[in-house]
Amino acid sequence: MHIIEEAYRRYGFQPLETPAIEYLEILTGKSLENDKLIYQIQRARGGEEDKADAAIALRYDLTVPLARVVAQYAELPRPFKRYQIQPVWRADRPQPRQGRFREFVQCDADIVGTASLLADAEIIALTYEILRDLGFERFVIRISSRKYLMGFAVASLGGVEDFSSFCRSLDKLDKIGWEGVSKELAARSIDISKARSLIDKLTDPGTGLPSLDRAADVLSGVAEAEEGISEIREVISSALSLGVPEEFLRFDPVLARGLDYYTGPIYESVLPDHLHIGSLSGGGRYDGLVQTFSKQGVPATGATLGLDRIQTALTQLGKFETAPAETQVLIAQFDEEGMAENLKMAAELRRAGVRVEVWYDNDRMKKQLAYADRQEIPLVLICGPDERKKNSAALKNLRTRTQQEIDRAHIVDAVKAQLRDL
Amino acid sequence: MHIIEEAYRRYGFQPLETPAIEYLEILTGKSLENDKLIYQIQRARGGEEDKADAAIALRYDLTVPLARVVAQYAELPRPFKRYQIQPVWRADRPQPRQGRFREFVQCDADIVGTASLLADAEIIALTYEILRDLGFERFVIRISSRKYLMGFAVASLGGVEDFSSFCRSLDKLDKIGWEGVSKELAARSIDISKARSLIDKLTDPGTGLPSLDRAADVLSGVAEAEEGISEIREVISSALSLGVPEEFLRFDPVLARGLDYYTGPIYESVLPDHLHIGSLSGGGRYDGLVQTFSKQGVPATGATLGLDRIQTALTQLGKFETAPAETQVLIAQFDEEGMAENLKMAAELRRAGVRVEVWYDNDRMKKQLAYADRQEIPLVLICGPDERKKNSAALKNLRTRTQQEIDRAHIVDAVKAQLRDL
Repeated sequence: MHIIEEAYRRYGFQPLETPAIEYLEILTGKSLENDKLIYQIQRARGGEEDKADAAIALRYDLTVPLARVVAQYAELPRPFKRYQIQPVWRADRPQPRQGRFREFVQCDADIVGTASLLADAEIIALTYEILRDLGFERFVIRISSRKYLMGFAVASLGGVEDFSSFCRSLDKLDKIGWEGVSKELAARSIDISKARSLIDKLTDPGTGLPSLDRAADVLSGVAEAEEGISEIREVISSALSLGVPEEFLRFDPVLARGLDYYTGPIYESVLPDHLHIGSLSGGGRYDGLVQTFSKQGVPATGATLGLDRIQTALTQLGKFETAPAETQVLIAQFDEEGMAENLKMAAELRRAGVRVEVWYDNDRMKKQLAYADRQEIPLVLICGPDERKKNSAALKNLRTRTQQEIDRAHIVDAVKAQLRDL
Repeated sequence: MHIIEEAYRRYGFQPLETPAIEYLEILTGKSLENDKLIYQIQRARGGEEDKADAAIALRYDLTVPLARVVAQYAELPRPFKRYQIQPVWRADRPQPRQGRFREFVQCDADIVGTASLLADAEIIALTYEILRDLGFERFVIRISSRKYLMGFAVASLGGVEDFSSFCRSLDKLDKIGWEGVSKELAARSIDISKARSLIDKLTDPGTGLPSLDRAADVLSGVAEAEEGISEIREVISSALSLGVPEEFLRFDPVLARGLDYYTGPIYESVLPDHLHIGSLSGGGRYDGLVQTFSKQGVPATGATLGLDRIQTALTQLGKFETAPAETQVLIAQFDEEGMAENLKMAAELRRAGVRVEVWYDNDRMKKQLAYADRQEIPLVLICGPDERKKNSAALKNLRTRTQQEIDRAHIVDAVKAQLRDL
């Protein structure tokens, strides 16, 4: 989380938190493929506030609450660049191996109040930097545009009646394959096989990859497609200027994203060697969402990182390191007589910025040292009757396996010196 | 939150987060004065997991979930010192002026696995340091013990049948006064006037403050009271050794705390000049709570800080400062031709650790500078056709109201130099 926050700040995003609970009508106004995924909350008491009868629920993403906040607080600056790291809830089937849980933490960065595609490029560059900073080496940011996809549907299928459902089915491609997508769309009387043959024509036979140039050729004359392709070109070009290496950016002719509210460029990042994990991030432009909560239209774009999924991926790649305890010194308890003095030492060390634990019980030294070992606490201070007589303390270094006798007055200095050398 | 976290780490506490949702039976097993305060959640889907019929709800504090975690994960170290900063939910009447909301953030630090009263003293010293670090100058940590209070009830009232209700009523003293408490207890056939006359006897006529010595005299022979008073003495003495100034610690003979699960020392901190805000922190020893979720008894103690109430108090004291945006440089957009180069400058600066925003739209310079002003961004880089010809950029310092022309190759150095001088 700190790595992600650091990147958000480098790009000038400010933190925002919103309540977990929203009015249900806000959450369903525009939105989720399936209201059944929303956890509703029983109102415990009524009549004490406005809208006491309105249904309330746990948020299922951070984008809809952001749009509600933007609609509600006209005084926010433009552009409004906020990041938000908070849990969301979906009544879905948990799949721990894919990092899917009912409560999961999303990290969102959004730029509200500009239609400029530079904003989309910044979101993509930010996503690239975060994934790189987190330790991912091989990943791809897939880029497309809802406008292109609409044009593609027109060109290949003569258009589709329910574009949202079309996008939602296509979005499951990594998970259920073409067979599954074909079946889902067949149920909606869409014969996706015609679209598949068009996709083949978008592939550059040299690189084997989809090509924007070929897409421009093949879809030439389809207005939505042309506009979408030009958007994608602009976003990719700006992302390159922002320092994203070309091999991390890929036009994906079947990228759809599952949410209804996207209106322009869309993007998601995946691990090509671990597609079963799903996307690590996803986002896009949603110029119409704020308007569902206010009279004013406010363009916006942004992306979500799935923290749990990222952790799952890093763990499976062997790159997730759990942080050890940060305590630097354990003050052991040799006997009860020494405790008042031990507490004073603890206070002195803490005042000097050292992270200190005090042992609370009159246990055997072996047990206390085993705790320090397990918690990876490097230094242990011990003060028994001998040391008390000499007004000193024994400073054990568990890393170097050495021990020093330190004059009581010099303990802070001695501890800090040993910590510097660790 | 950062100040609080820093103090937790100085004392050797490690972070823990738990899910917002718990089984209702966990939350009500031991606990809240009023189950009506718990927000229950409608299960959206059933049958896909264990306990699909079990009611679920939002946690109302962080202590009960901690006890559940400790009971569930026997492998945790002992002592287990965790801190947790997360929201909790209570279906209560919001009182913004008192910093009371339905969703509010608690900051908890608990020490699990030791019965030593040193742990209670550490929690008190930690609370003192946090409130001091946050900028509070006049506050008092009230200290008592449930054992003492039980003895007090025996001595003054011949004992009370429902000790929990007795504590809950007494806990409202700051809010509803003696008259309100008397009324509440009269409804339970408790005549609190007998207790009030005993309290007077505990006051030292010299200082006008309650005195542990007098309490020991007056309650001598009442076993629970004697044990409780000795606990309080030990906790205060250790807190003094840990560096808490004496004037911040006060034995409070009518401190009760509202929660059922306390078994030993209890403590809360208040602002004596702003009692209407209520307690900023509260806690105590709860040696029986973990056992309600497991066979094993595990002693524990800890305290909660109410973040919203602390913010309310600091705001009312004029000590709450909102952080300005942290962006250091705004790269203005003079014209669209310059954008690719602007993005490259942004990438270079960010790589050098500078926090940079890029202006996204082709707006008038006045609007862009007004944004920088409002967001307190100190530096603005502008690159128009003249600068491009000379391969340079104009660096405006909005603090010093100066402007320099900088060679393109030296922009990172120039920006860093100006940031150092701010």
